[in-house]
Amino acid sequence: MDYTLLHSIDSPADLRRLPRTDLKKVADELRAYVLDSVSKTGGHLGSNLGTVELTVALHYVFNTPEDRLVWDVGHQTYPHKVLTGRRDRMPSLRQIGGISGFPRRDESEYDTFGTGHSSTSISAAHGMAMAAKLKGESRKAVAIIGDGSMTAGMAFEALNNAGVAHGGLLGDVLVILNDNDMSISPPVGALNKYLARLMSGSFYAAAREGAKSVLKNTPLYEFARKFEEHTKGMVVPGTIFEEFGFNYVGPIDGHDLDSLVPTLENLRDKKGPQFLHIVTKKGSGYKLAEADPVKYHAAAGKFDPAVGFVKPATPGKLTFTQVFGDWLCDMAEADPRLVGITPAMREGSGMVEFHKRFPQRYHDVGIAEQHSVTFAAGLACEGIKPVVAIYSTFLQRAYDQMIHDVAIQNLPVLFALDRAGLVGADGATHAGNYDIAYTRCIPNMAVLTPADEDECRQALYTGFMHNGPVTVRYPRGAGAGVVPVKAMTAQAWGKGEVRRQGQGIAILAFGTLLYPALQAAERLDATVANMRFVKPLDAVLVAELARTHDAIVTVEDGCIMGGAGSAVTEALNAAGLNVPVLQLGLPDEFVEHGDVAKLMSLCGLDAAGIEASIVKRFGAKPTVVRAAVR
Amino acid sequence: MDYTLLHSIDSPADLRRLPRTDLKKVADELRAYVLDSVSKTGGHLGSNLGTVELTVALHYVFNTPEDRLVWDVGHQTYPHKVLTGRRDRMPSLRQIGGISGFPRRDESEYDTFGTGHSSTSISAAHGMAMAAKLKGESRKAVAIIGDGSMTAGMAFEALNNAGVAHGGLLGDVLVILNDNDMSISPPVGALNKYLARLMSGSFYAAAREGAKSVLKNTPLYEFARKFEEHTKGMVVPGTIFEEFGFNYVGPIDGHDLDSLVPTLENLRDKKGPQFLHIVTKKGSGYKLAEADPVKYHAAAGKFDPAVGFVKPATPGKLTFTQVFGDWLCDMAEADPRLVGITPAMREGSGMVEFHKRFPQRYHDVGIAEQHSVTFAAGLACEGIKPVVAIYSTFLQRAYDQMIHDVAIQNLPVLFALDRAGLVGADGATHAGNYDIAYTRCIPNMAVLTPADEDECRQALYTGFMHNGPVTVRYPRGAGAGVVPVKAMTAQAWGKGEVRRQGQGIAILAFGTLLYPALQAAERLDATVANMRFVKPLDAVLVAELARTHDAIVTVEDGCIMGGAGSAVTEALNAAGLNVPVLQLGLPDEFVEHGDVAKLMSLCGLDAAGIEASIVKRFGAKPTVVRAAVR
Repeated sequence: MDYTLLHSIDSPADLRRLPRTDLKKVADELRAYVLDSVSKTGGHLGSNLGTVELTVALHYVFNTPEDRLVWDVGHQTYPHKVLTGRRDRMPSLRQIGGISGFPRRDESEYDTFGTGHSSTSISAAHGMAMAAKLKGESRKAVAIIGDGSMTAGMAFEALNNAGVAHGGLLGDVLVILNDNDMSISPPVGALNKYLARLMSGSFYAAAREGAKSVLKNTPLYEFARKFEEHTKGMVVPGTIFEEFGFNYVGPIDGHDLDSLVPTLENLRDKKGPQFLHIVTKKGSGYKLAEADPVKYHAAAGKFDPAVGFVKPATPGKLTFTQVFGDWLCDMAEADPRLVGITPAMREGSGMVEFHKRFPQRYHDVGIAEQHSVTFAAGLACEGIKPVVAIYSTFLQRAYDQMIHDVAIQNLPVLFALDRAGLVGADGATHAGNYDIAYTRCIPNMAVLTPADEDECRQALYTGFMHNGPVTVRYPRGAGAGVVPVKAMTAQAWGKGEVRRQGQGIAILAFGTLLYPALQAAERLDATVANMRFVKPLDAVLVAELARTHDAIVTVEDGCIMGGAGSAVTEALNAAGLNVPVLQLGLPDEFVEHGDVAKLMSLCGLDAAGIEASIVKRFGAKPTVVRAAVR
Repeated sequence: MDYTLLHSIDSPADLRRLPRTDLKKVADELRAYVLDSVSKTGGHLGSNLGTVELTVALHYVFNTPEDRLVWDVGHQTYPHKVLTGRRDRMPSLRQIGGISGFPRRDESEYDTFGTGHSSTSISAAHGMAMAAKLKGESRKAVAIIGDGSMTAGMAFEALNNAGVAHGGLLGDVLVILNDNDMSISPPVGALNKYLARLMSGSFYAAAREGAKSVLKNTPLYEFARKFEEHTKGMVVPGTIFEEFGFNYVGPIDGHDLDSLVPTLENLRDKKGPQFLHIVTKKGSGYKLAEADPVKYHAAAGKFDPAVGFVKPATPGKLTFTQVFGDWLCDMAEADPRLVGITPAMREGSGMVEFHKRFPQRYHDVGIAEQHSVTFAAGLACEGIKPVVAIYSTFLQRAYDQMIHDVAIQNLPVLFALDRAGLVGADGATHAGNYDIAYTRCIPNMAVLTPADEDECRQALYTGFMHNGPVTVRYPRGAGAGVVPVKAMTAQAWGKGEVRRQGQGIAILAFGTLLYPALQAAERLDATVANMRFVKPLDAVLVAELARTHDAIVTVEDGCIMGGAGSAVTEALNAAGLNVPVLQLGLPDEFVEHGDVAKLMSLCGLDAAGIEASIVKRFGAKPTVVRAAVR
């Protein structure tokens, strides 16, 4: 591909100097550049190919960065990054020290708002629009949001708020609904059906106008006029977006620059809340991705664009997600009360097979974490046993529902928490660092941290059989490689186990860091316990280890602040046991994107790091530590 | 009042045996009973008077408890409690050991789902309806939700999910929108305006039918028929609830039993998602409450129904809410960048005066906690300094937004966290026990715990001046009575102060428990530090106190698990300091409703309790504790 035009664009100002007739070529080059770039680095693909023309049109029409673009979710911002001075940094995408796969305020002045989770853009853009009003500035704020993101409640909260004036001020916010009939999973829900009706070609707003022109100059016109007068004060509904106070325009073809540019120019000059409905195709311009948008949502790594995504010849290691998916099917087979729930993460959560086999017991509720949890609570009240499969980072969206609807009522809901700990390339927005801290403080809540694949299966079974709320957390990707035993056996409730008997130091490991802890222990001759439960914590084992060792080391892949190590210390304090404790875990900072193994090493959470931290704190001869303290 | 009929009703079955003509008298007696009862105990008033007829009609038409009623928020369930066998327990309402002011599953089989926070009912009822489908049961599930609760995103998430079939199953859920043009604060937002249009008398659904009958038997009819054919496939929108897949009926008068009962009977026999829009008046039947629904939302204590709510002759003690409200006005006066945001809690958060004086800088975003926080983040990106006033328990709804939109971007948003710790009569659903644990684990987040009224004012100022996210937490009601100094002085960042120098034991107090801690310390001759900051914690002071004392006692009015005491222990562990620690705070259980002082005493968090816990753990002679440990 010849990137003549693209190479002349180092900022949107360069783009805006081009004649409008050049934009199609810019878009073609940009699409090819993004496809080529992602084929070398991996990353999100379909969403970026789908927003090429929109990105070109937005930077062409709006005076960025003075006007603010807020990209919902943000995984569709590669074209935006290329046009805003980061073309040459694309090879570093999602790698340590490289540019992020999402917009970030500290990366570029064109990234006006960091995103990652869905459905925040209207709220943020409304804030920016109101700020402009308060400061007497005429800048515009634009939110670009997908139809999937539109199903999350906070998008509606924002529409409800942005559509009316506050203290006499009405924000100049433009919401662009990028309707590609897709979230990451296939679309669900009533809103999606509604949008499909709007897209079906002819719809009410147009029809209303059409009716007038059909009638005009006929004898019926006068009657119609009178009828309209007669029914004055009637609510004649428009689209639901008009009901929310927005001026609705669309749907228009989001790949047609001749339609996009003039429409955006028109909307740019309007006051008050504007709503543009565009229709795009995920993966547009790359036939393989157009044909299978779910598969081509994101590339795990390099691929040949001519060939497409190819399954590796040797199957990859079993992931925790697969362990969950297999367990879910087996458990559903064994217990007809099981219902599986996902907030729009069927593929990511490993529920494709379950959906196929148990369609009536599968619920994709859309991007609606809050609803997913309270819906589960409602099911649980009726004797159903719901399993909510959710990423650690997304459970943050349903924290109140977990406390208020599940835990207070002590309902048996199992939370299968995937992507716990660092997640790698997606970075800080998606990190599952906080769940141990924020779940264990909830009364009635049990928190299980399986150490490997088999433990994960058994922990899920154990949690499912428990008559109360349970969280089972496991990380992204593969573990130590312990093949799950098909038979399901309940783990002893609230009990850990000693995995290595050593002396001096006792390492209490939570979750998959058990394995690097065991390696470190070999070199230090330390004792290692696989704690399994953060809550209920095995206080008996903690006390016994405290009494028989000179120091305790806790290891976890969650934040130290309020984490499992603090649970151990609380138990020691409650028992009046006074022993030196070293807490190892994730630091009190947002860990950026990059390879998980490297990041964990940087955080000192591989075997060498654990060993080094212990030696640094207690010296090379840990058996004499107690005397060394104070 | 003569309660002849009411006294004959010990369960809804008794009600259902009455002829329909008796229902009005039942409703009249019930209204009088509720008013009389609340006038003696305090509690929610307006919402309960507004739902008397609806409650009678629901229990008359539906086969409760076999059919499930889910009351959103739940503070309107006093009539429901009276009709479901709890008439005689009303004098114990909201008191220790008495019945709750909200529905509770463990209180009655008629309380099918516990509520307290808003907007959960549709999710829960949808869960129950789907469970019935899965189990082949024909029971109905009914959600009763106010127009205020309808503005929260999760209500939309639920509508979006409940309006479509799953695995071929469509739930028989009835949503009753109880439209009283009120949340606790006056209504805001686009949805409210929309509902007002629907209520205005004539609206589209009726008009559409009307148009047909006007045309019928005229020469125009054929044209209209042809036009309709011509435009086939057009979307002719109904109400937004129809767009979501619900069969919409209404609005009808929610106080007219002759309208309510047959409408409910009709809807009871329909399959699939039904939506009934009723219009009621908050405080209905009690003129004073009808005239001022905000004032009569809830009674703080006893009152004479003939006289109404009377301001006490001597003004009450200054509350932390008032301290915040005063500070907000003063700070807004001093800094034009300040914008105040509330999710529908203008009165409760003390923002009435601020709203009056700074209408353009006041934002009530509706019951929309998620949006409130991301909206604040958007403002902060543009140099505005937002203050989000929110109850601790409601911030749980915006946890992800706090992490993802504010903290990751390190934006200067001040969270003024009212109702931290136990809240009293509202009970476990509203308790602010968890915020220290769930906020301090967030990187970049500062957490301040002022000890009294003046400290609160100065902490708010300190937080506001900080260039990053800050939470300032303070409890419901009044404090030690330290009159705030008008001048605002920044507290030393991350620094505590020693308030009493003693020996042996060092008590590290966070927040208002400083005062009982000081009392306890007098008797024990203990040192007391007012820590002020949970984060950044004054690690220097912690280390110094650890080095100079035999034991550390931490005191906080939040949960022990992951709380401020654990922050102290983490600091000690990080510094390699080994000293006995006793952590005092709220236990790992849901603390029920009742008088706060009594509950705090039961939790051992008054002066006597703190002293007793210290003596129990360290003995009467705390100076020899270190030797006694282990």
